[in-house]
Amino acid sequence: MELSGIFAAVTTPFDAAGGLRLEHLAGNFAAYRASRLSGVLVLGSSGEAIYLDQAEKIAVLEAAAAAGLPGKVLLAGTGEESLRGTLETTARAAGMGYQAAVVRTPHYYKKNMTAAALSGYYRTLADEAPLPIVLYNIPPLTGVDLGLATILELAQHPRIVGLKESSGNTDKLVRLAAERPDFPVLVGGASTVYPSLCAGAKGAILALAAAAPAACCAVYDAFRRGDHDLALAAQRALLGAAASFEPLGIAGLKAAVEAMGLHGGPPRLPQLAVDGAQRAAITAAFAPLRDAVPAGAAR
Amino acid sequence: MELSGIFAAVTTPFDAAGGLRLEHLAGNFAAYRASRLSGVLVLGSSGEAIYLDQAEKIAVLEAAAAAGLPGKVLLAGTGEESLRGTLETTARAAGMGYQAAVVRTPHYYKKNMTAAALSGYYRTLADEAPLPIVLYNIPPLTGVDLGLATILELAQHPRIVGLKESSGNTDKLVRLAAERPDFPVLVGGASTVYPSLCAGAKGAILALAAAAPAACCAVYDAFRRGDHDLALAAQRALLGAAASFEPLGIAGLKAAVEAMGLHGGPPRLPQLAVDGAQRAAITAAFAPLRDAVPAGAAR
Amino acid sequence: MELSGIFAAVTTPFDAAGGLRLEHLAGNFAAYRASRLSGVLVLGSSGEAIYLDQAEKIAVLEAAAAAGLPGKVLLAGTGEESLRGTLETTARAAGMGYQAAVVRTPHYYKKNMTAAALSGYYRTLADEAPLPIVLYNIPPLTGVDLGLATILELAQHPRIVGLKESSGNTDKLVRLAAERPDFPVLVGGASTVYPSLCAGAKGAILALAAAAPAACCAVYDAFRRGDHDLALAAQRALLGAAASFEPLGIAGLKAAVEAMGLHGGPPRLPQLAVDGAQRAAITAAFAPLRDAVPAGAAR
Amino acid sequence: MELSGIFAAVTTPFDAAGGLRLEHLAGNFAAYRASRLSGVLVLGSSGEAIYLDQAEKIAVLEAAAAAGLPGKVLLAGTGEESLRGTLETTARAAGMGYQAAVVRTPHYYKKNMTAAALSGYYRTLADEAPLPIVLYNIPPLTGVDLGLATILELAQHPRIVGLKESSGNTDKLVRLAAERPDFPVLVGGASTVYPSLCAGAKGAILALAAAAPAACCAVYDAFRRGDHDLALAAQRALLGAAASFEPLGIAGLKAAVEAMGLHGGPPRLPQLAVDGAQRAAITAAFAPLRDAVPAGAAR
Repeated sequence: MELSGIFAAVTTPFDAAGGLRLEHLAGNFAAYRASRLSGVLVLGSSGEAIYLDQAEKIAVLEAAAAAGLPGKVLLAGTGEESLRGTLETTARAAGMGYQAAVVRTPHYYKKNMTAAALSGYYRTLADEAPLPIVLYNIPPLTGVDLGLATILELAQHPRIVGLKESSGNTDKLVRLAAERPDFPVLVGGASTVYPSLCAGAKGAILALAAAAPAACCAVYDAFRRGDHDLALAAQRALLGAAASFEPLGIAGLKAAVEAMGLHGGPPRLPQLAVDGAQRAAITAAFAPLRDAVPAGAAR
Repeated sequence: MELSGIFAAVTTPFDAAGGLRLEHLAGNFAAYRASRLSGVLVLGSSGEAIYLDQAEKIAVLEAAAAAGLPGKVLLAGTGEESLRGTLETTARAAGMGYQAAVVRTPHYYKKNMTAAALSGYYRTLADEAPLPIVLYNIPPLTGVDLGLATILELAQHPRIVGLKESSGNTDKLVRLAAERPDFPVLVGGASTVYPSLCAGAKGAILALAAAAPAACCAVYDAFRRGDHDLALAAQRALLGAAASFEPLGIAGLKAAVEAMGLHGGPPRLPQLAVDGAQRAAITAAFAPLRDAVPAGAAR
Repeated sequence: MELSGIFAAVTTPFDAAGGLRLEHLAGNFAAYRASRLSGVLVLGSSGEAIYLDQAEKIAVLEAAAAAGLPGKVLLAGTGEESLRGTLETTARAAGMGYQAAVVRTPHYYKKNMTAAALSGYYRTLADEAPLPIVLYNIPPLTGVDLGLATILELAQHPRIVGLKESSGNTDKLVRLAAERPDFPVLVGGASTVYPSLCAGAKGAILALAAAAPAACCAVYDAFRRGDHDLALAAQRALLGAAASFEPLGIAGLKAAVEAMGLHGGPPRLPQLAVDGAQRAAITAAFAPLRDAVPAGAAR
Repeated sequence: MELSGIFAAVTTPFDAAGGLRLEHLAGNFAAYRASRLSGVLVLGSSGEAIYLDQAEKIAVLEAAAAAGLPGKVLLAGTGEESLRGTLETTARAAGMGYQAAVVRTPHYYKKNMTAAALSGYYRTLADEAPLPIVLYNIPPLTGVDLGLATILELAQHPRIVGLKESSGNTDKLVRLAAERPDFPVLVGGASTVYPSLCAGAKGAILALAAAAPAACCAVYDAFRRGDHDLALAAQRALLGAAASFEPLGIAGLKAAVEAMGLHGGPPRLPQLAVDGAQRAAITAAFAPLRDAVPAGAAR
């Protein structure tokens, strides 16, 4: 398994009543299969994992694994608040063919999620879980920030194989990549993929890539070829699309997914659906990216 | 049901392996039964609800209801991130004899938990749930703050019957109580019960009251009798105890519960257990409050 | 000098070109003289000290001292970012009859304003300045929070005679007053004067008291007489007025001052002036408080 | 004047009693003259401008201008809290040969520094000041963040010629550079110069460049030549040095300046001086950069 390149953080389709629509998830995978994506993350923040009960999480993980992405990396989001819960979900994912578990920092009891508590959590998890662990730091959602020193300590564990870093902290990224150029860091911000690669990131796990994989991969591919001018141009080509949906949360992302001809659908409540004007703006902003989606992924 | 006075936010006992120890929960209820508490909150933040799976939550709610608190109010913490999940857990609690559901703000997708999203969430919940709803605002844990205007709007709903306010924002409390003196606000901070009552709160839901119910009730009782000097003295008598355990999270609270002769036990990971020195400091800080606990609640 | 009761944090009047209008300042003092205020703070945050050059600060301090408030306490805001600057301004105030210097935390280099740096600053200042020092903590403006432990340490210095606490942190206030009931704490929030007095504050330094001294003093006087019902009613009578101007900064405060028949005028830029609708709303909100102002203070 | 490349944010030397030591400032300029720096910023945050009185500010600006940097750009930090004060200081700098004024956001009354207030401030300033204006956004010190929309609006003013952006927000930088590739943005973080250049910044204004100009310029020069590998290597060569002094504020910076053979000296109080161990660590961290300093700049 190589943690580099662009990964899509895929959405979880629901019907109007809020039930799972797993055939839509499978349908979207056809597009991802045909793309240059390195892989996908199922049940990340973009996948509304936090809104699913345990049986639903298993069903989504199974459906995604069954849909299949030959030659690509399958990542499962398995983080729960308790170590016990995370171990259980990770064990389930291990049996389905996932190659690593992406585990967000526990965070409800924020002030007690000290470096010692987080370090202990991830070390025990890595010792006991049947999948390699990718750390997942996303302070804008969790209010907890996994510090550089803790990451460096955890990166020494043979079963901790990477980091999804969604803090937007470029300083930390530069330092981390300088200290451990071999430890893969995947960033989470679609608008900063190119400078993050320059700073030393190995790739990105992006909500935007669930809607527009080709446009996202274009940034990475140009960078890998050493074509910085093209990489910057490709980066700039993402900005309007990213700005159109990001403020609207999962509802915005799903509208973006639909704008690109894939299966979106409503988010679960309490996330509010987009209104007509918001949807039109998203569709317009994604128009320039539509050519980049392979045909055959339509609803 | 009257939402006034002191409520204990009870802990959920575990054994060394992290399994539920429901007989310890029942044992603690003997002390609460004998106390002047107005009631208890089961599965609040102090109850590690966030660390339990769905079956465990139901088991804890059932055990607490079965333990029984005649003449007192039973509150169930039923908030999940999704409306769907909250409705389900609330429905389960309704059949067990709980009198209201205390529902924390959903918060994972923080920037999308706008006033409109939160208002929509609570109104739909109150329309559809079989229990009256108590709003629960706790920004230090959630990073979301339910604003005054939203609370006032929601307080007009006949099935939204109160607010647990754990923001520590006295300005908001004064304004809320001035606008709606009939709408019960219960605060969450053990160190500010007395000034909060002065500001217009009707009572408090306290982690400290799970350890030291009598000492907490002493503040309320003096205030109700109009004895402000005694109320302030009783408030000050809580400060050392509160300071001793609060920085240590659930582990600290459970050590405090043990210091008062009740069943504590370890928290679930990733919360770290207290060490010997921390436990000794907590025990010492609670010594002045021990006389206030009725006998017969010992392990 | 006794630091108790209500102090007005007075405004600094300017003409339309932004020049000082000291006769207006003196005019306002007629109303303060006739009030039940314990004293005034000149050149606090309400006084736009941060917008004045050194010569202007001296001129304002002199004009206020010359205006005279027999039997009341004159406090000078003398905090600069550097110890050197604070010492210089404090020395100037000492020669004019001020009884203490109110000194806000230095804060520009926030992360370096550690407990050690702040403690060193205030101790040296108290050792060397010719006036007693009142600590001034206002994190909403400074981004720096003077912690409880540091305050308790500084409160042992014989020349540090009190604290203006504008954090809104009631927990800290309760703990501080319990530890050092003799060390005067004056709070800064007009909407929470009554619960703060209950918590142990000795009084308040209020922007609102520069506009409506009588209404503010009513809260304190009722509390002092032990009439809690009246104190709460008097507190609630302030809420609409406070809410009307506080979001609008100094411009709002000066409009409030005018609404009460005193001299307001424009703030200095970059503070924006209030527009007509904002002014009308402030005037309306203060109408219920107008009777409380002694006649003869009009423009 | 071209705003590109590396600028040093120079320090203001003091003697042990806290008095200005202008001959040391002039001495340091010999090193800057011999460097590949594009210019210097006098009286920025690194220059302790906030600790100087008005006469001292003028004296420092004059001394720096007199020291002379032929062929380089002289920038004056002239931001005060009031528009009036900023205009006055800017007018003084204009007569001395400075080419632009770098003006930080006013920030004391944070919540009133709305987009409208900040926009009005900078537009009036640009209309009336005798020097072109460089916006200066530094939220870690000010608690105010100049938003992208406001910057884009202000960038249309013919006398607003650039932005110093010290927020560390790479997303904003990418978007700004994409919208206005001609509007120069200079970043403030020494550890992220290279990725910031990739993102579209035109250069950087760095405290570190006051100590180690050559090492900082190496990043820029490699980037300009299109040598990304060397630029990243040069970036990484700065990290240890930056980490050694940045947490220690101005005292740390001045110790770094001394470690490189230039004139440092103590900061003004309340900034605490570095202790021996801190100084030794800084000296050691800068050792690898010493060769890069031209000889002849020694004390």
